[in-house]
Amino acid sequence: MKNKNIARHNATVTRARRESLNGHKGAVLWFTGLSGSGKSTLAHTVEEKLHRMGCLTYVFDGDNVRHGLCGDLGFSHEDRVENIRRISEMVKLFLEAGVIAMAAFISPFRSDRERMRNFLGGDFLEIYCKCSLEVCEKRDVKGLYRRARAGEIKEFTGISSPYEEPDNPDLMFDTGSTPLEECVEKIVGFLIEREIVKSPARAKRFHASP
Amino acid sequence: MKNKNIARHNATVTRARRESLNGHKGAVLWFTGLSGSGKSTLAHTVEEKLHRMGCLTYVFDGDNVRHGLCGDLGFSHEDRVENIRRISEMVKLFLEAGVIAMAAFISPFRSDRERMRNFLGGDFLEIYCKCSLEVCEKRDVKGLYRRARAGEIKEFTGISSPYEEPDNPDLMFDTGSTPLEECVEKIVGFLIEREIVKSPARAKRFHASP
Repeated sequence: MKNKNIARHNATVTRARRESLNGHKGAVLWFTGLSGSGKSTLAHTVEEKLHRMGCLTYVFDGDNVRHGLCGDLGFSHEDRVENIRRISEMVKLFLEAGVIAMAAFISPFRSDRERMRNFLGGDFLEIYCKCSLEVCEKRDVKGLYRRARAGEIKEFTGISSPYEEPDNPDLMFDTGSTPLEECVEKIVGFLIEREIVKSPARAKRFHASP
Repeated sequence: MKNKNIARHNATVTRARRESLNGHKGAVLWFTGLSGSGKSTLAHTVEEKLHRMGCLTYVFDGDNVRHGLCGDLGFSHEDRVENIRRISEMVKLFLEAGVIAMAAFISPFRSDRERMRNFLGGDFLEIYCKCSLEVCEKRDVKGLYRRARAGEIKEFTGISSPYEEPDNPDLMFDTGSTPLEECVEKIVGFLIEREIVKSPARAKRFHASP
């Protein structure tokens, strides 16, 4: 940390007060898995469900992070580490804001995910989108596997760079065979069980009409 | 932008839907002024007021940004530019999340603030905490002016580096003489006028008890 000349100001609005206002707790749902394993689709579908339950949510993925905050970073080892560091710091601020933050990144290295878990503590929930390389490669929505096989993309996870499976994820789905809706229900059920959100039947939050 | 291999996923939960859920709009209140001009104190006091009105808020300052997301950056010209770039990108994500984001940074250069205004558009509200160098230096809460005068801190705004006053800020206060509560009332009044938040009498949002 380069900056010693910065004083810490006392904020009166704390995470706990924001969570009480929001009617749910902050959390980080970290979706990891191969390209094409359905991380983003799952995160956005969970977000839709939580939003309808009155929760404050945000999804981070390549779209809004790799094009913006981390737009100066490439895919070298050093840049990947810095990418994960910035995402961790940003996600921590969203946690403080009482938001349920979802992050959908391949995040192939166990060490990166462990660093994140250490940094974020119990608020970090690792969700493994387990899907065979065959299925992901067959989907190849973005044509990236074809290009990686052709050698046009270097260090592509699953082809020319390893994916290290989570040892003990909080949740795991075979996203090659499990229906999307079933994965969503399980994730929301898990959040209710962990008392991060209230079950819809018990939620007492009312909203102004638009 | 270094990353061409990233597809854009369609999110169904939009900023507008989040704002409707939250009962207020997202905005960025950017507090600029000399060190000791009261930016952070004002931002945190506005936050307290808005929180009590049921608004989702977050304050960015040296505390949570310079120690975290931008902890690798110093105060060279290059690092200051990158600091502002990252803060802009982060603040934009909070805007997307429908939060009223407040940022308290000296931000001495007009060009940086203009870049921010161009990037964030009408959501960027510049609040100038105008306070004479004499008053700020007399306060010297953190002892920084004394150290800057002694040459221990280089390029210190107001002493050895310029502060470029805003030409046309959205709001301006003489924070050396105006009571804090008066500044807060004016800022909240401005947000109501701009229809970013609802006046307390008209707010219809109810919250679950903790």
